[in-house]
Amino acid sequence: MKDRRLLMIPGPIEFTPEVLRAMGMSTTSHIAPNFIEVFGRALERMRQVFQCPDGQPFVVAGSGTLAMDIAAANLIEPGDKALVVSTGVFGERFAAILERYGAEVTRVETPAVGDVPPPEAVEGALRKGGFKVMTLTHVDTSTAVAVDVESMAALGRQYGALVVVDGVCAVAGEELRQQAWGVDLALTASQKAIGVPPGLALVMAGPRAMETFRRRRTPVANYYADWTNWLPIMEAYEARRPAYFGTPPVNLIWALDVSLGQILEEGLEARFERHRRISRAMKAAMTALGLNQVPVRPEIAAHTLTAPYFPEGVDRSVLARIREAGVIVAGGLHPAIKETYFRIGHMGAVTPSDVLATVGAVEKGLAEVGYGFEPGAGLSAAQAVLAQE
Amino acid sequence: MKDRRLLMIPGPIEFTPEVLRAMGMSTTSHIAPNFIEVFGRALERMRQVFQCPDGQPFVVAGSGTLAMDIAAANLIEPGDKALVVSTGVFGERFAAILERYGAEVTRVETPAVGDVPPPEAVEGALRKGGFKVMTLTHVDTSTAVAVDVESMAALGRQYGALVVVDGVCAVAGEELRQQAWGVDLALTASQKAIGVPPGLALVMAGPRAMETFRRRRTPVANYYADWTNWLPIMEAYEARRPAYFGTPPVNLIWALDVSLGQILEEGLEARFERHRRISRAMKAAMTALGLNQVPVRPEIAAHTLTAPYFPEGVDRSVLARIREAGVIVAGGLHPAIKETYFRIGHMGAVTPSDVLATVGAVEKGLAEVGYGFEPGAGLSAAQAVLAQE
Repeated sequence: MKDRRLLMIPGPIEFTPEVLRAMGMSTTSHIAPNFIEVFGRALERMRQVFQCPDGQPFVVAGSGTLAMDIAAANLIEPGDKALVVSTGVFGERFAAILERYGAEVTRVETPAVGDVPPPEAVEGALRKGGFKVMTLTHVDTSTAVAVDVESMAALGRQYGALVVVDGVCAVAGEELRQQAWGVDLALTASQKAIGVPPGLALVMAGPRAMETFRRRRTPVANYYADWTNWLPIMEAYEARRPAYFGTPPVNLIWALDVSLGQILEEGLEARFERHRRISRAMKAAMTALGLNQVPVRPEIAAHTLTAPYFPEGVDRSVLARIREAGVIVAGGLHPAIKETYFRIGHMGAVTPSDVLATVGAVEKGLAEVGYGFEPGAGLSAAQAVLAQE
Repeated sequence: MKDRRLLMIPGPIEFTPEVLRAMGMSTTSHIAPNFIEVFGRALERMRQVFQCPDGQPFVVAGSGTLAMDIAAANLIEPGDKALVVSTGVFGERFAAILERYGAEVTRVETPAVGDVPPPEAVEGALRKGGFKVMTLTHVDTSTAVAVDVESMAALGRQYGALVVVDGVCAVAGEELRQQAWGVDLALTASQKAIGVPPGLALVMAGPRAMETFRRRRTPVANYYADWTNWLPIMEAYEARRPAYFGTPPVNLIWALDVSLGQILEEGLEARFERHRRISRAMKAAMTALGLNQVPVRPEIAAHTLTAPYFPEGVDRSVLARIREAGVIVAGGLHPAIKETYFRIGHMGAVTPSDVLATVGAVEKGLAEVGYGFEPGAGLSAAQAVLAQE
């Protein structure tokens, strides 16, 4: 399936051998005692990884977009007001999903691509009042911009909004203390920092989100996403009882339990710190090679991926060269700048060796297309960061 | 994950080693050239397996219920009339889903659990007119009842309804000639006769279904299910171009392509005949042991599973004995008779050896709970059928 090239895109990522073994094991019944134990434990472990002891986890077959759909469909009723703090493509996607369920959406946009909306702009919008939901994209995969979830969530709650965090490119990579930070719902997809092949939508709903759902006056407009169907199932498996609504994706859930176990064994603090260190090394390398990045300031750059602009005289044809050199990186995604930048994912089981391999391949690709730089400058810069700790 | 016990439930089933190997392979990028080829080929192969050369396939991460949701959400607009031909739990589920999207649902029920609605009753309902959609459950997993899709579809089309077939427990096991029979949409889930671990919703929409979708006056109420999002993706991958909406479940799609290849290599006619033979053997064994079945007449019994009633004096505690004897079968699902019957799945890669192992385990379980029967009677009856051909 995959050749020996290193997969350094913002998901799917490189998965651990143990996770891949779980994927390939003979499928058991969804009501087999050992699967019930695994599913129940995975739900408990999700609470630990999201740092949301009072949360209600949902694990459903689907993509990250389904996780966003689940959040919007269950929390929004027609006419509700929603504030979308947008830092890229996935903010706009959340707005489109919220509107599908009848929300009146106000967008707070960034002054420029690669920036975050100023807190005053967010507070200004919130002050106008009446927002039932505020959404944040923790890391927008299209721009590699991270928002300050802690302060934004505090602001949202101050004005009475439910705080919903799209953590697709963040959860288990970027620091998130869901409950302590007052985040009412956080969501992700399996193929990102949580380290499981694509196919699972993961949602953690806090007590205020569940209460909002329970008080709905209208049915959820989306049948498959409806917590009315899924809540009894999640509660049953966590109580180690079988239950049936749709057949759970047995192999993916088994792999999820394995990966969550590995995440907790590493320790969340150590894991966040590893992501920060890897990210500093990658970003230092790109800077040493003379490549600017999409995030306009280092402090708003994500730790799970890096989005460098192509330097003067280089275009996306360099990506094929990087690939030939052994590493797969991703092209641009944000429509306004799509052809001018690329993206390097570095989350989950990523190692310092992966950083060096990637920087080496980028250097080789850049040299082949005639870009002038001091050979090894990127590697030295990365190594300087990696060797510090 | 799974012990050496044989998994004979109506999904997940036993999968082939090649399919499991695809599941456990290192995940590649969703836009890697070899994955684009595999996804494109899987879509083409779906058309062959559904026997729907002019159909539009959709492969989306989710359960079989999502496939039903996709059908209803894209075809129904508020106020549309839908006729549900119900033969068990999944007919009722389709009714609930259709109603969620604003359909006025008329149900044609069976005279008794285990029967099918008489054709006159279906025609009588259709004659009242105005149905945009008619749904059939090819095999209702809760009752093991199969409907005559060919004649029912002809009836539906005669009265101008779009014919939608829930083929979850049928496609690639029961004979289905989607295009020749005038079925406008057929759907299934990966973990049934199509032979891939759970996690994929599979839909094949014929030209009339796509035309109905294109002529919608209202947006699809469900964002994740919306063909507006998925159609360009399916078209792109089939044209061997990458495209992005949600990250496709790479490993599951790889496994799907492997399984579809195995199905086509066996040949659809041979595969249907194998399912019929296996089914005859299993049903003959149950009859020889004195067990009645939920389907009230042999000609309406599915070939993908068998649903025997417990004999006099035996209850569901026998299922644990059967399990101890090495074979996992499923309990009842239909609420009206849940505690009185069990279900044996036999689809996909099922073999004559599996039939004998299962009948042997059922005999052992029945003997242990004190049920009186001639030991070996079930095995002899099964073997008589299996040896015929």
